[in-house]
Amino acid sequence: MDRVKVSILGSTGLVGQWMVKLLANHSFIEVIKLSASPGKVGRKYGEVVHWFLPGDVPEYARDLVLVSTDPSDHKDVDVVLSALPNDVANAVESKLLASGLNVISNASPERMNPRVPLINPEVNWNHLTVLREVKGNWLVKNPNCTAAIISMPLKPINELIRELHIVTLQSVSGAGYLGISYLAIDGNVIPFIKGEEEKIDAEINKMLGNQYVDHYVPWGKNVYVTTTRVPVKYGHMAVIHAVLNDSIDQKQIIERLRGFRSFPQEQELPTAPREPIKVLDRVDAPQPMRDLDPMAVSVGRVLVRNNILRMVVLGDNLVRGAAGITILTLETMKALKIL
Amino acid sequence: MDRVKVSILGSTGLVGQWMVKLLANHSFIEVIKLSASPGKVGRKYGEVVHWFLPGDVPEYARDLVLVSTDPSDHKDVDVVLSALPNDVANAVESKLLASGLNVISNASPERMNPRVPLINPEVNWNHLTVLREVKGNWLVKNPNCTAAIISMPLKPINELIRELHIVTLQSVSGAGYLGISYLAIDGNVIPFIKGEEEKIDAEINKMLGNQYVDHYVPWGKNVYVTTTRVPVKYGHMAVIHAVLNDSIDQKQIIERLRGFRSFPQEQELPTAPREPIKVLDRVDAPQPMRDLDPMAVSVGRVLVRNNILRMVVLGDNLVRGAAGITILTLETMKALKIL
Amino acid sequence: MDRVKVSILGSTGLVGQWMVKLLANHSFIEVIKLSASPGKVGRKYGEVVHWFLPGDVPEYARDLVLVSTDPSDHKDVDVVLSALPNDVANAVESKLLASGLNVISNASPERMNPRVPLINPEVNWNHLTVLREVKGNWLVKNPNCTAAIISMPLKPINELIRELHIVTLQSVSGAGYLGISYLAIDGNVIPFIKGEEEKIDAEINKMLGNQYVDHYVPWGKNVYVTTTRVPVKYGHMAVIHAVLNDSIDQKQIIERLRGFRSFPQEQELPTAPREPIKVLDRVDAPQPMRDLDPMAVSVGRVLVRNNILRMVVLGDNLVRGAAGITILTLETMKALKIL
Amino acid sequence: MDRVKVSILGSTGLVGQWMVKLLANHSFIEVIKLSASPGKVGRKYGEVVHWFLPGDVPEYARDLVLVSTDPSDHKDVDVVLSALPNDVANAVESKLLASGLNVISNASPERMNPRVPLINPEVNWNHLTVLREVKGNWLVKNPNCTAAIISMPLKPINELIRELHIVTLQSVSGAGYLGISYLAIDGNVIPFIKGEEEKIDAEINKMLGNQYVDHYVPWGKNVYVTTTRVPVKYGHMAVIHAVLNDSIDQKQIIERLRGFRSFPQEQELPTAPREPIKVLDRVDAPQPMRDLDPMAVSVGRVLVRNNILRMVVLGDNLVRGAAGITILTLETMKALKIL
Repeated sequence: MDRVKVSILGSTGLVGQWMVKLLANHSFIEVIKLSASPGKVGRKYGEVVHWFLPGDVPEYARDLVLVSTDPSDHKDVDVVLSALPNDVANAVESKLLASGLNVISNASPERMNPRVPLINPEVNWNHLTVLREVKGNWLVKNPNCTAAIISMPLKPINELIRELHIVTLQSVSGAGYLGISYLAIDGNVIPFIKGEEEKIDAEINKMLGNQYVDHYVPWGKNVYVTTTRVPVKYGHMAVIHAVLNDSIDQKQIIERLRGFRSFPQEQELPTAPREPIKVLDRVDAPQPMRDLDPMAVSVGRVLVRNNILRMVVLGDNLVRGAAGITILTLETMKALKIL
Repeated sequence: MDRVKVSILGSTGLVGQWMVKLLANHSFIEVIKLSASPGKVGRKYGEVVHWFLPGDVPEYARDLVLVSTDPSDHKDVDVVLSALPNDVANAVESKLLASGLNVISNASPERMNPRVPLINPEVNWNHLTVLREVKGNWLVKNPNCTAAIISMPLKPINELIRELHIVTLQSVSGAGYLGISYLAIDGNVIPFIKGEEEKIDAEINKMLGNQYVDHYVPWGKNVYVTTTRVPVKYGHMAVIHAVLNDSIDQKQIIERLRGFRSFPQEQELPTAPREPIKVLDRVDAPQPMRDLDPMAVSVGRVLVRNNILRMVVLGDNLVRGAAGITILTLETMKALKIL
Repeated sequence: MDRVKVSILGSTGLVGQWMVKLLANHSFIEVIKLSASPGKVGRKYGEVVHWFLPGDVPEYARDLVLVSTDPSDHKDVDVVLSALPNDVANAVESKLLASGLNVISNASPERMNPRVPLINPEVNWNHLTVLREVKGNWLVKNPNCTAAIISMPLKPINELIRELHIVTLQSVSGAGYLGISYLAIDGNVIPFIKGEEEKIDAEINKMLGNQYVDHYVPWGKNVYVTTTRVPVKYGHMAVIHAVLNDSIDQKQIIERLRGFRSFPQEQELPTAPREPIKVLDRVDAPQPMRDLDPMAVSVGRVLVRNNILRMVVLGDNLVRGAAGITILTLETMKALKIL
Repeated sequence: MDRVKVSILGSTGLVGQWMVKLLANHSFIEVIKLSASPGKVGRKYGEVVHWFLPGDVPEYARDLVLVSTDPSDHKDVDVVLSALPNDVANAVESKLLASGLNVISNASPERMNPRVPLINPEVNWNHLTVLREVKGNWLVKNPNCTAAIISMPLKPINELIRELHIVTLQSVSGAGYLGISYLAIDGNVIPFIKGEEEKIDAEINKMLGNQYVDHYVPWGKNVYVTTTRVPVKYGHMAVIHAVLNDSIDQKQIIERLRGFRSFPQEQELPTAPREPIKVLDRVDAPQPMRDLDPMAVSVGRVLVRNNILRMVVLGDNLVRGAAGITILTLETMKALKIL
C-alpha cells in the first residue's frame, strides 16, 4: 500500500501526543511534520514536549524540529491531522484548506457544516463516500469525544430508538492536561460542561443521519443530554436510557451490540478494534479504572424494562474520542480509495 | 412543650454520630441512652467512638455509658431512633417493637411494609396521621438517603409528571465510614449499588402516593433509575429527566420549587430548613464541594425542552438523607400530637 | 482603640479572599479599599470574585468597587496589606513604598532584605521594635507559609537545637486555586517545589536570629529541608528531626510547646490563638483532614531518641501561613504603638 | 536448569496476585499449588479471585483448585512462597517448617530471628550462603516493603554513612486492597503506620550487617525513621537525609548509585532489573505516577551540602517490596545452588 504522509497540528498537547504515539511504527502512515505553538517552533519535539503518556516519546519523533501551522510548512504532506484546541482551530484550518491541503480534524468548528462529513468510522464510514464527488481538497471532522463514544452502541440499534436520555460522567483529561485544577474537582462533581450538551445532541443526529454532498439529513430523534465532570483521569462514561419504539428482549440487544462489525473491522484496518463494542457481564462494569479500552467501547448494565433500554457506556476520550478516531478515519479513507 | 426522651441505636456509626451531634442542645428532644454493638457496651461513648464529624464529641454524650440494643436497656425511652446497619436492623427493631417500644428507623427492612409509614416530612408528613388510629406502639421508617433527597423537588410538581429518568452520582459516605476502599474508588466510578435502584423506585412511589392504616396506594409512575458511586465524600447528586404530561414554562417550575413550604416550615420545627428547596442560579451548580446544605436540597440546571424537565439535585446523604430526617420526623410527630 | 484603615492588594486570590473574610467585623481594622488586576478594576468585588471559601462573600465587601494597585488609589489608607503573587509584588510594592505608604506583605521579594523585619508575631514580634527608630514609612514582610508554620514550635526550644532535618508535605492550595491540575497531582507526590527549600532555611534563620535597624544576625543553624507536594487541599505538614545539643526528656519538650505563650497571647490580640501550639496525644495526629486549626499549629508524634527530637507539625497555609499572619502582624504593631 | 516447583500462600491477596502474575511463563519456576483462606479452598482460582491487577488472570492459574495452608497440601512442592498477612503468617509458616518444607516469606514474623536470613537480593544475597551449612529445610524472609526499597540505594554507599534521617510517604496499597477507606485517606495524610518505623530501622541494620549461621551482627548505625501514609495508590517514597562521615562530591555518589550491579545482575536472573538503581535527572523526579518501575528503585534530587547527602527514593511496594523480591530471592538461591 502506498504510504501516506501526514503532519500533526497541536502535537504537544494531550491529544497530539496520543497521535504521535499511535503513529509510531504505523504500517502505512508516516508522520513527517509536527507542529506546535509559535514559542516552540524551531526546537526539537523531544526537548520541548512535556510528555504525559506512559512510556517514552517515540524515537521517530524526538528529533523532529517543530514547524508552524502555516501552510508553507505543510507543503509535502498528504493530510494534515489536527489536534488543535477549539479556539484556535478555525483560523488555522481555514488557511490550510485555502492553500489546498486536506485536513482531518478533532476540533469543534465546522463540525455541523452541511458539506463536511463528521465521521466515527464504524458508525458512518459511508458518509465519506460523498467526497468522491468533490473536486479538490477536503475537510473531514471527527466528533466530540463523548459523541464518538456514545454513537457506537447506538448504531446497531438505532432504528429501534424513539428518544434518548443521556447523562454523562466525563473525565478531567477531556479538558486538557492543565484544564481543571485539583482544588476545583477533587472530591467534587461539576454538573456543567460548556457547550457539550448541544454538541452531543447535534453530532449524534448528524452521524446517525444521511450525508449528501452539500447537505445532510439528521437522524431526527430527540436526544436529551446532561453532562457532568467527575474526578476521574481518563475515560468518559454515559448512562443511556433509550425510549424504544417497542419493548424488545434484552438478549437480542446484547447480541446486536456484541455482534456489531463494520467496514473498519471487515478491512482489518490497523487501528480498528476487533470487537468495537465489548458487552461486559460483570454486575459493576464498566469502570474507568478497570475496563477502559483504547478504541473499543465498553457497555454494561444492559436492562430492558417496559420499552426503556438502559445501558452504561465507557470509552477512552483521548483515543477512541480523539487521537485514535482521526487515525482510523484516515485509514478508512485510504481503504475507500478517497485518498 | 414536653420533653421527648430518646435513645439512639448504632450511635457510633456515621449516621448515629450525626444524630448525637444534631441532638446536642435540642429544644425538646433529650438523648438519654446511646447504644452500640456488644463489644462496646459498658464503656463511655466519648472513649469508644471514633469521631468522624467536624468539631468534638458533644459534651452531653461523652460520659454516657453505652447500652445494648436489648429492650430492657430502653425502658424509660419515649422513642428509639435507629441508625442501625440494614443487616442487623430487622432483628433488633422487631424485638424492640414486640416489647412495646416506639421506633423511628433509617434502616431499609420494613420500609415497604404496607402498614408502616415511610416519611420524608416535607413530602408526606400527612401519612403520619394514620398512626392516630393505631393503638399501641408504632414503627415509622425513613426512606433511603437518595429517595429522601430526590422526593423533595418532585413533591411540588408531582402531578405534572408522567415518567422519570434518574441517574444518581452518590458519595462514598453512603456506604459508611469504612465502606469503600481508596483503591476501589479513587479516580473511578462504580455504576452499580446493590439494591439501590429498586429502593428508589419503590420508595418514591410510596411517599408520593397515599397512605392508609393498613395499606398504601402508590403514586403509580414509572421511575427508571441508574445509580453510580463517585469519588466524592459527602452529598448525593441526581440528574432527573422528568417526562411531563405537557410542556410547561420553566419559570413556573422554578417558582414552584422555590416557593415550596410544608408542615415542618409552617410549624417552624427546629430541624426544618427555612427554604427546603434551594434553586441555584449559578450555571455550574449544584456541586457537592460548594453547595451542600445539611437539610435543604439544592437544585440547579433547571431546563424544560419540549415536554422534558431536566434538573440536577444535590442533598446531604447523612443529614437530610439519614440522621436529620429522623429527627425532623420526630419533631413532626410531636407537632401532630401523635407522640 | 483608634481604627486602622487598610487596603488589600490581590484581594480576589485565595489569600486575598481569606484577608477579606478574616477582617469582616474586626474590632479595629477597617478595610476601605480592595484592589485587583487591571481587568477587574472598576467593578464590584462581589460581582467579580470567584469566591472559594466556605460561606458567602462578607457583606461589607460585596459592593466595594475594585481599585488599581497604583499609589493614588491607596492615599487615605494607614497600611496596605499585600496578598500579591510573588512575580508582580516587587514592582507594585516598591511603587507604594516610594509614594510614602506603609506595607505589610506576604510576597517573597525583599524578605531577606537586611532592613526589612520578617515577622511571625509569636516567634519574633520583638523584631518589629526596630521600626521605632525608622523615620517615615516602612515595609514589613511575613514569611513563606511553611516557614511560618515550622518556626512556631521551634521557638520555645530553639536554644536546644544544633541542626534540623525537615521534610515537608505541602498542600495544593499553596500554589493558588488554579496552581496545580488534577491530572498532575491526584494520586501522586511531586518531591520538588521551586525555591521553597532555600526560603525555608533562610527565613527560619532570619526569624530565630536578631534584627537590628540595618542588619540582622541569623540564628546560625544548619536547616536541611526537602519539600514535597501532596494531594491534600489545605494544610502544610512537616516532619522535623531536630538534632539537639543534648538528650532531653520528651515530657519537658511537650511542656515547653504546650506552655508557649507570646506577646500576641499576652495582649489578647483578636486574631491570636489562645494556645499557639496544640500538642495532640492521638497516636496518628496531626492530620490535615482532622486537625487543621486556622491560626494555631498542631504538633504530634513527639519523640526523643538519643539526642534526636522528632515531631510532626501541621498548620493552615492560607491563614497562619498567609492571610492570618498579616493581620496578626498588624494587630501586634498596633499594640506596640508602632502604628 | 531444573525446574522449581512452588506453591503460593495468600494467593488471592494483592501480593499473592502479583506472585501469580509474575510467575506466568517463568523460565524455571513452576506454580503447582495456590492456597487461600478456608472459605475459598476447593474452588477454582479464576472463579474466586477478585483480580485487582492490570490484564486478566494468567491462564495457567484460572483452573487451579485452591488448596489449604496445611502441610499435606504442599507435599510435592520444592519451596512454599508466602504472601500471607502478618497476623496469620506465624502459625501457618511454623507448621509448614515443622513438616520439613522450605519457605520464603514476605510476612513480618521471624524477620529478626537471628538464624533466619533477611534477604533483598542485590543488597545481601551473600547472607544466603549461610544456608549451605544448614541441614534440612529452611526459612528465608524478605524485608518490609519500605526497607526493601530504601536498602537498595544505601548499599553502594553504606560505608560512607554515619546516621540516617528518613521520612517515608507510603501508598495505600501497602495496607492491602481493602486496607484504608476513601473517607480516611483521600485528601489527607496520616503520619503514623503501626510498627513500621521500628521495622525499617531494625531490618536495614540487619540487611546491611553480617549474617552468620546462628546470629547476625547489625550494621550499627542509627536510623531515625518517620513514616506517613499518603493518598497514592502504588509506590512508596522516602526522603533520605544521610549524615556522612565526610563530605563527598555528589557526582561520585550518583556514579556509585548508577553503576551499582550485584549478583542478580551478574547472573542475569529473570526477575532482576538490569539497572537496579535508576538515578533520574528531572528536577521533579521521582513521582509515583510517572516514575514507578516494578523492580528497580528510582532516585532523584540527589544533593550533598556539607556532610549531608539528600536523596528521594521511590519503589514499587508490591513488586520490589513484596512479590518480586520473593521471586528474585528464589532465583538467587537457585543460582547459588542452595536449592
